[in-house]
Amino acid sequence: MVLFTAGSYDVIVIGAGHAGCEAALASARIGCKTLIATLNMDNIAMMPCNPAVGGPAKGHLVREIDALGGEMGINTDKTCIQMRMLNTGKGPAVHALRAQADKKWYQAMMKETLENQTNLTVKQLLVEKVLTDDGKVYGIETETGEFYEAQCVILATGTYLRGKIILGEAAYAGGPNGQRAAEKLTDSLRELGISLMRFKTGTPARVDRKSLDFSQMSLQPGDEETHNFSFMSDVITREQIPCWLTYTCEKTHEIIRSNLHRAPLYMGIIEGTGPRYCPSIEDKVVRFADKTAHQVFIEPEGLHTNEMYVQGMSTSLPVDVQQAFLRTIAGMENVVIMRPGYAIEYDCLDPTELKPSLECKKITGLFSAGQSNGTSGYEEAAAQGLIAGINAALLVMRRPPFILSRSEAYIGVLIDDLVTKGTNEPYRIMTSRAEYRLILRQDNADLRLTGKGRELGLVSDARYERFISKKEAIETVLQQLWQGVITPTVENQEKIKAMGSTEIRTGTSLFDLLRRTEIRYDDLRRQFVLPPLSPIVQEQVEIAVKYEGYIKKQFEQVERLAKLEAKTLPAPIDYNLISGLSLEARQKLNKIRPLSVGQASRISGVSPADISILLVYLEQSRRKGAGE
Amino acid sequence: MVLFTAGSYDVIVIGAGHAGCEAALASARIGCKTLIATLNMDNIAMMPCNPAVGGPAKGHLVREIDALGGEMGINTDKTCIQMRMLNTGKGPAVHALRAQADKKWYQAMMKETLENQTNLTVKQLLVEKVLTDDGKVYGIETETGEFYEAQCVILATGTYLRGKIILGEAAYAGGPNGQRAAEKLTDSLRELGISLMRFKTGTPARVDRKSLDFSQMSLQPGDEETHNFSFMSDVITREQIPCWLTYTCEKTHEIIRSNLHRAPLYMGIIEGTGPRYCPSIEDKVVRFADKTAHQVFIEPEGLHTNEMYVQGMSTSLPVDVQQAFLRTIAGMENVVIMRPGYAIEYDCLDPTELKPSLECKKITGLFSAGQSNGTSGYEEAAAQGLIAGINAALLVMRRPPFILSRSEAYIGVLIDDLVTKGTNEPYRIMTSRAEYRLILRQDNADLRLTGKGRELGLVSDARYERFISKKEAIETVLQQLWQGVITPTVENQEKIKAMGSTEIRTGTSLFDLLRRTEIRYDDLRRQFVLPPLSPIVQEQVEIAVKYEGYIKKQFEQVERLAKLEAKTLPAPIDYNLISGLSLEARQKLNKIRPLSVGQASRISGVSPADISILLVYLEQSRRKGAGE
Ligand SMILES: Cc1cc2nc3c(=O)[nH]c(=O)nc-3n(C[C@H](O)[C@H](O)[C@H](O)COP(=O)(O)OP(=O)(O)OC[C@H]3O[C@@H](n4cnc5c(N)ncnc54)[C@H](O)[C@@H]3O)c2cc1C
Ligand SMILES: Cc1cc2nc3c(=O)[nH]c(=O)nc-3n(C[C@H](O)[C@H](O)[C@H](O)COP(=O)(O)OP(=O)(O)OC[C@H]3O[C@@H](n4cnc5c(N)ncnc54)[C@H](O)[C@@H]3O)c2cc1C
Repeated sequence: MVLFTAGSYDVIVIGAGHAGCEAALASARIGCKTLIATLNMDNIAMMPCNPAVGGPAKGHLVREIDALGGEMGINTDKTCIQMRMLNTGKGPAVHALRAQADKKWYQAMMKETLENQTNLTVKQLLVEKVLTDDGKVYGIETETGEFYEAQCVILATGTYLRGKIILGEAAYAGGPNGQRAAEKLTDSLRELGISLMRFKTGTPARVDRKSLDFSQMSLQPGDEETHNFSFMSDVITREQIPCWLTYTCEKTHEIIRSNLHRAPLYMGIIEGTGPRYCPSIEDKVVRFADKTAHQVFIEPEGLHTNEMYVQGMSTSLPVDVQQAFLRTIAGMENVVIMRPGYAIEYDCLDPTELKPSLECKKITGLFSAGQSNGTSGYEEAAAQGLIAGINAALLVMRRPPFILSRSEAYIGVLIDDLVTKGTNEPYRIMTSRAEYRLILRQDNADLRLTGKGRELGLVSDARYERFISKKEAIETVLQQLWQGVITPTVENQEKIKAMGSTEIRTGTSLFDLLRRTEIRYDDLRRQFVLPPLSPIVQEQVEIAVKYEGYIKKQFEQVERLAKLEAKTLPAPIDYNLISGLSLEARQKLNKIRPLSVGQASRISGVSPADISILLVYLEQSRRKGAGE
Repeated sequence: MVLFTAGSYDVIVIGAGHAGCEAALASARIGCKTLIATLNMDNIAMMPCNPAVGGPAKGHLVREIDALGGEMGINTDKTCIQMRMLNTGKGPAVHALRAQADKKWYQAMMKETLENQTNLTVKQLLVEKVLTDDGKVYGIETETGEFYEAQCVILATGTYLRGKIILGEAAYAGGPNGQRAAEKLTDSLRELGISLMRFKTGTPARVDRKSLDFSQMSLQPGDEETHNFSFMSDVITREQIPCWLTYTCEKTHEIIRSNLHRAPLYMGIIEGTGPRYCPSIEDKVVRFADKTAHQVFIEPEGLHTNEMYVQGMSTSLPVDVQQAFLRTIAGMENVVIMRPGYAIEYDCLDPTELKPSLECKKITGLFSAGQSNGTSGYEEAAAQGLIAGINAALLVMRRPPFILSRSEAYIGVLIDDLVTKGTNEPYRIMTSRAEYRLILRQDNADLRLTGKGRELGLVSDARYERFISKKEAIETVLQQLWQGVITPTVENQEKIKAMGSTEIRTGTSLFDLLRRTEIRYDDLRRQFVLPPLSPIVQEQVEIAVKYEGYIKKQFEQVERLAKLEAKTLPAPIDYNLISGLSLEARQKLNKIRPLSVGQASRISGVSPADISILLVYLEQSRRKGAGE
């Protein structure tokens, strides 16, 4: 193969999935000359599974990506065919936005955005080698003999590395959705000393809308109120296509159980580890043997197709079994499968080999993001992509890395979990993984992150102005609420009674009145002199007031722990030399190389006793350093 | 592999390219329970080459497909981003409509149409075997172990059979555009005794619009007047996206020449035969060594992409060479390749093994259409697909096959060429292939074929009514023109002079006046009592009048030859037993088994002398038959 120098870039992103798109856009927007390579121009931003974006914790990620100037939120708003706010019956911490996208339109719009991004070149290339010299990246090599030079390379290869499709008795090399697999890149990564894991994931059948009997299912309509992911979207009306809910039954499970001998998952054909929180239906039937029914959501794949996604029924059982068990589900008695479900196995990196910047510890300038880091899900991928893109650009510009802490963002939780704890199955974000849920709400992602995005150069003037004016509006009202103290006059007591609340005894601020569960800002405004607010500002004000106590407590926790986070661990520590540390702690600390005592404390196998010893050691080194 | 009976259909179409889509729609619309199988739901109606439909002879095919109730015209009208009538400076026989389509939208709309067609099921299946019993089809078998029963099976496998992608030094198994290849179906066909050929085709690079300098190219705008392919489309305005024209230069050719040692075409890597009329640029440079420049059209691939197609520059040279020679073209000095050009090799059938109905001679119920019959081009594929779909449905219904003659349609020319003469390279339709060009115009495809489509059950009431009223309007006016005889009065002579024509000597019909080149229908109407006409009726009337002589002559030729076409050759003739026939004629006649003496006369190697002997033989058999 003749190698020719086909171009020179600051940053090259390998992969144009959800991770790669955000990575490339961020790097280009920060100002780096960026190349994004995909093995097929037609698979850009492809959703090989659900046509859905968001949901608990995932929706939070999308809002955070948006606040930092990413694209996923905007693109979802543009192309979505249903939007719902989930968990509205619960507290604001778990409210979560979820959208159905038009799968093809989502791809087309993201591709258009990439193609028109300044500093960004989009190319179809199958990358076969990452080139390094003395532990530092200098470029990539493609299948067709091109060499591209770069200071940083971001792996965002998803499920394509040595991808293998498994469907009943059939198995063949391939990527998702009829794509090619990337067969050779794995070897190149191995040669660089990178450890790889083998994971698997799966997808259910797509079925023909015309073959379903919706009268036996329950309607899942979109919200009447129009929501948007992006703080910048002004979409106010939107056609809402419904989803449908139905259930498996005993007969479904029986068919699956009696065909387990033909399930690749139980035949030893599948070697990779699957996602515990997104199991195949055969896995669910085996693991939750006493459940008599599982939910099945029927979701449209787009406005212009009859293909429907059968959520909850991911499988790699043979097609005849797929058809048989689907036909036991209410409303699916005559179902016609358009594409069968299948499983895919692929190689991915061990994320503990990454720094919190998502750079490989072993190789300067090599980053990794998305499913190639052992995660699952579009939003997880996009979030990592954004961070990897930012950090690659910062490295090119010789600026310090951008790292979000667990108390600043779900993105921080996600990446800290990955690089600190690692994962032995496809990792998925969940609200339960976040310690500071009340701070990390989807509604305040802009307040938490837009300022940071601005410093990075990712937040446009328009976005920044909108953010500042929202922030100021909130602060102004909070001030007014604090300052508006009312006394227990007859007139005031009447007003309070009119709001359905109980009398005050002493002078009370409007802030304290608003704390009361039964009083909403609009009630208050009707009785006292207060400005009218936009719904988003009003929401922030009410949450700030009503949850003030809890929020304060979480901030105190954050502060306490921040002390540990602030105690940084300088790079060349040899933990074997620190006496008193347990053997496991030494090994783990030497492997993970945490950046701070805080991070060290979250490594499984590192005990509080080990942390104390570390603190003592740090204190001694500090004194020694000072003494010198 | 466990085989399970997954369904039973009248007709199964293997492939959802341009041939497969028309075949499946026709079969379903005629009333047969039809299954269309594609190896990927996302490649339905994919255009792996130009995003263009129509042009000389190809545009005629599209109009004919439309007149018969096919979909290509309607779909193009729906999704086109530029439309031009070519050759308007020449006679009506060669006027040809040509459209740029939005590639992705074309696919989406055709997929939607398939999915919503009554009697039609769309499925992603990789077919590996055609099943026969005693020379008769009974079904297919898929990669994933399903058996589908059918009375007829239509092969429309395009370039996928043992597809091999070749790009410079790289070569691998695959279909076009990153699709999988169908590796096993070939073996199944071979086992059925079907002969296969190996052809190749290729495509140029797609380049980034942003990297082009259009100021150095010439604009190729769409027509101001709005045209439509379909006689049913009422689109009257349409955004028109321009194309661009530029040229190769000596430097381009020099680079190609000096890299021929790296061209798969000249290195023996490519075994398949390529299309003579759609050669790669390396082929053009070698074959037309004295040409100093070749045209290069730059065509947008869609409304929402910057990908531009570089028409005329199809190549399988290595990517570095592609980039180098493209950069010598005016306006492409800084071109960025988004997808490189490549060649593809594939297996296809020898079409002389097919009957004019497109059924295999050897296997009852097995049809073949499109690129799998050795043709090239979307329109050629669609035309064959329509005919194969119709004939499969007719076979299911025990009705006689539908065969169009060379004097009825370009479709007739295309199929007769294929099954009678065969092809040893990818066959492309051209106006020069049609003997009766003046009859087979694109403007009268409805008048030629809608009645036939109606008999087949493919023409809706709405289409039929529109057709009948157009036909009646034409006939009425022609009557009026014949009957409106004017005498050489002073007043009439004045009127004639006003039209810029010369005086009449005797009583003259308006018909005869309209024959005059300088007089148009509108002039005539201004001077004499005649009805106003719609543009399409007026066009037909003018052509009918002005070209009457030529058209009559062609019809006489047709009639003369029709006598030979009417002399049918009963199936079991053993040509070896007819003494006097040349050896070559015997072999060819035994192989092709023409249905008529007319068809026999077009077989290369069958001489007029052979035909005379055949006619004598037939006359003798007829007498013998009568004598018995
Ligand atoms: C069958 C299937 C089922 C799934 N089911 C679920 C589920 O139920 N729930 C869930 O949350 N998630 C699921 N996922 C995961 C979800 O699709 C991914 O997490 C998400 O798409 C990952 O995004 P990514 O950007 O990391 O990778 P991808 O979206 O996979 O993108 C990878 C990109 O890398 C490119 N690429 C790879 N190698 C090369 C190379 N060598 N050279 C050039 N380009 C290369 C590809 O072209 C592609 O553009 C599923 C995925 C699959 C395939
Ligand atoms: C790279 C390239 C360049 C080309 N360049 C030109 C050109 O310059 N000029 C020109 O006129 N034409 C060109 N063509 C040809 C044009 O694209 C085809 O003629 C046209 O698309 C053929 O239509 P078709 O329906 O016969 O096949 P295709 O459009 O190829 O469709 C084939 C269908 O069969 C399906 N299929 C195949 N095997 C199986 C199986 N075993 N099981 C299930 N499904 C199967 C596929 O999924 C697909 O849906 C080119 C084609 C390619 C690939």
